Amino acid sequence: MTADAVLLRDDLKSQMESLGRAARQAAAVLSHSAPETKNQALRAAATELRRNQEELLAANAKDMADGRAKSLTAALLDRLELTPERIEAMAAGLEDIAAFPDPVGKILSEWERPSGLKIARVSVPLGVIGIIYESRPNVTADAGGLCLKSGNAAILRGGSESARSSAAILDCLQTGLAEAGLPPEALQRPPTSDRAAVGLLLTMSEWVDVIIPRGGRGLIERVREESRIPVMSHLDGLCHTYVHAAAEQDKARAIVVNAKMRRPGICGATETLLIDQAVAGEQLPAVLKDLATAGCTLRGDGTSQAIGRGAGLEIDAAQPEDWDTEYLAPILSVRVVKGLEEAIEHINRHGSHHTEAIVTEDQTAAETFMQQVDAGIVIHNASTQYADGGEFGMGAEIGISTGKLHARGPVGAEQLTSYKYLVRGSGQVRP
Amino acid sequence: MTADAVLLRDDLKSQMESLGRAARQAAAVLSHSAPETKNQALRAAATELRRNQEELLAANAKDMADGRAKSLTAALLDRLELTPERIEAMAAGLEDIAAFPDPVGKILSEWERPSGLKIARVSVPLGVIGIIYESRPNVTADAGGLCLKSGNAAILRGGSESARSSAAILDCLQTGLAEAGLPPEALQRPPTSDRAAVGLLLTMSEWVDVIIPRGGRGLIERVREESRIPVMSHLDGLCHTYVHAAAEQDKARAIVVNAKMRRPGICGATETLLIDQAVAGEQLPAVLKDLATAGCTLRGDGTSQAIGRGAGLEIDAAQPEDWDTEYLAPILSVRVVKGLEEAIEHINRHGSHHTEAIVTEDQTAAETFMQQVDAGIVIHNASTQYADGGEFGMGAEIGISTGKLHARGPVGAEQLTSYKYLVRGSGQVRP
Repeated sequence: MTADAVLLRDDLKSQMESLGRAARQAAAVLSHSAPETKNQALRAAATELRRNQEELLAANAKDMADGRAKSLTAALLDRLELTPERIEAMAAGLEDIAAFPDPVGKILSEWERPSGLKIARVSVPLGVIGIIYESRPNVTADAGGLCLKSGNAAILRGGSESARSSAAILDCLQTGLAEAGLPPEALQRPPTSDRAAVGLLLTMSEWVDVIIPRGGRGLIERVREESRIPVMSHLDGLCHTYVHAAAEQDKARAIVVNAKMRRPGICGATETLLIDQAVAGEQLPAVLKDLATAGCTLRGDGTSQAIGRGAGLEIDAAQPEDWDTEYLAPILSVRVVKGLEEAIEHINRHGSHHTEAIVTEDQTAAETFMQQVDAGIVIHNASTQYADGGEFGMGAEIGISTGKLHARGPVGAEQLTSYKYLVRGSGQVRP
Repeated sequence: MTADAVLLRDDLKSQMESLGRAARQAAAVLSHSAPETKNQALRAAATELRRNQEELLAANAKDMADGRAKSLTAALLDRLELTPERIEAMAAGLEDIAAFPDPVGKILSEWERPSGLKIARVSVPLGVIGIIYESRPNVTADAGGLCLKSGNAAILRGGSESARSSAAILDCLQTGLAEAGLPPEALQRPPTSDRAAVGLLLTMSEWVDVIIPRGGRGLIERVREESRIPVMSHLDGLCHTYVHAAAEQDKARAIVVNAKMRRPGICGATETLLIDQAVAGEQLPAVLKDLATAGCTLRGDGTSQAIGRGAGLEIDAAQPEDWDTEYLAPILSVRVVKGLEEAIEHINRHGSHHTEAIVTEDQTAAETFMQQVDAGIVIHNASTQYADGGEFGMGAEIGISTGKLHARGPVGAEQLTSYKYLVRGSGQVRP
């Protein structure tokens, strides 16, 4: 390393530490700010976003131009783009968050001990949260708003391609904080989009309490590998829909097509269809035709290929890796299984513990499935695309957690809290 | 590395993987075992412990002999030793755990959405837990019992000095499992007490869901550094008792002496006394004398040294590192502070987020302290030695978690669960 590089690195390190220290101080203020103060900041930030529409679009235009010059894919450019509608959606999202009940200071349980001690378990903010995400500027507003609502400070590190757009959005959030009399340092971003800043963020355990990575497998695995701070994981959604022998045909057909094709690119989209051999001959042809008509590419095991062929539909052979692939695209792998047990076994082996569905009219089979499938969300007779904080009635979400520690399933403001025990005595000493 | 060493390492790796795979399979069975079956296993294990008292004492005698030969300290030998009373305590502990309500399958909340979907959040086991602890054989029974109660499989790795004792206890637990018709692989230990086995355990994320280290700072930091699996931390208890200006003198005196001296070696023992300057001159001399009489070594800041000297008590000067030291011994650091704000600042800087206490008759000061101090347990007018799952009414505990993710404070059977969302529909597809 050259002397200049060492200087730069040391400089970045001290900048990141200042950032962390300021975040910690801001978190101490936010942790006991009144709900109405936080809501005022959220609403003021929404107003700022609307007022600064032109500046946001101008900053985004530069990011988009650079993105095109770098030949980003159409999908990435779509995620990166801001429009007046998207800016309005961010602003409305912040107002929605403001309208939700405050998640901090709730008495979760309360009891008295024979010693006379009164014990209460009360929700508190997590502290300082580091959020690392891809080049989707709207996440800056959504995640920042949820952290603020839940009394946490956040260090928001979006993908480098969205740096100007994210910075402009963050300015609006900080103005909102200042207008409500809260420290703007409650929401910050690293001074550079250099990857080295992420590396430092992941080791600042003195200043950062939790890391939330949000993005693809590569990002999340890097964070898990490097982080010395607890990580709340949002991994893949490798979701299955299982059509049981006692499924009602029309229901199953509609659910499967919706689960795959409504929006094939979201994490709750179904990637593999499992169907019982007892009904595959009867039910599979219609489902496969619906899917093919909707533009879905199919990859089947031997049995489903044969059934497809019998119905005049040529399906590619699924390879072993298909069962472990999150396509996030209009592609579906299809496997015929012997029954409930084999379906559960397949899902527990290949699933990502995100969202799994069974279609059946047999209540006992449904309950067995829901009990034995190891996933954050298990659905009976509905589409896996319902895996969403908004659809759950939780308001905005940062994502769907696939870990088992702390939050599992949709992560909204309530899931960004911890708790403490308040113990009230009258002079008790322990015998 | 020699060819032999490579063979041995590969052999250990495949043994650990078999262990992990077997644990995963056993966890799948335990996750939906009936509460009564698990309780039957716990009671049968208690019976086994009593029946095998002689074998347990014989195995322990060998561990003790080796420990003496290795010149273990008296404190370590005390932790290592089994006696008929301690064996009975382990057995009774398992029966207590059996008598507690089952923590699995509880409906934590339930609601219906406008879409007609019925959503329930239900507690489920974590899965496979790796527990790494020091040479305290009783932890094998306590931790193993709590994991079994909560439907988890566990890989129990106690310190190498206790290998024979722990193995003998584990035999009893496995017999209990088998008698109840449950897979004995639900509770296992690594095939060797070689540290390499721990290294492997910490990377087996396919088979292990959570790591719980229980022990000193060195152990826990090593685990945090090496683990690729989420860690539920049980770090130091650097606890404070703060005597506020409005403290009632007799209450404060009794609480401080109990908080330090009842059992100076437990994690809830107070390590630092903070006292307001407004009452230090009046209240400190009596407290310091009580402590000195009880055999406590005192280390004070300048003001408390001066007050001590005025009362005829010579106190050593506290060094800067004293404020960051968990003595786990009859030693107390003492600092006079300006008031509430400085006390909170000191605690949030030097504390380990474990347990913190204020003594005051001023309700407003007490509430401010309880709100602003960042710790798992915050106590008003009682001894910090109440930081204990049993005293909280939670039954046995694995320890006190100082992390903010997942469990905080005492970790009992309930804290060893996660949850899943069960979503029940009638054919809903998402618009």
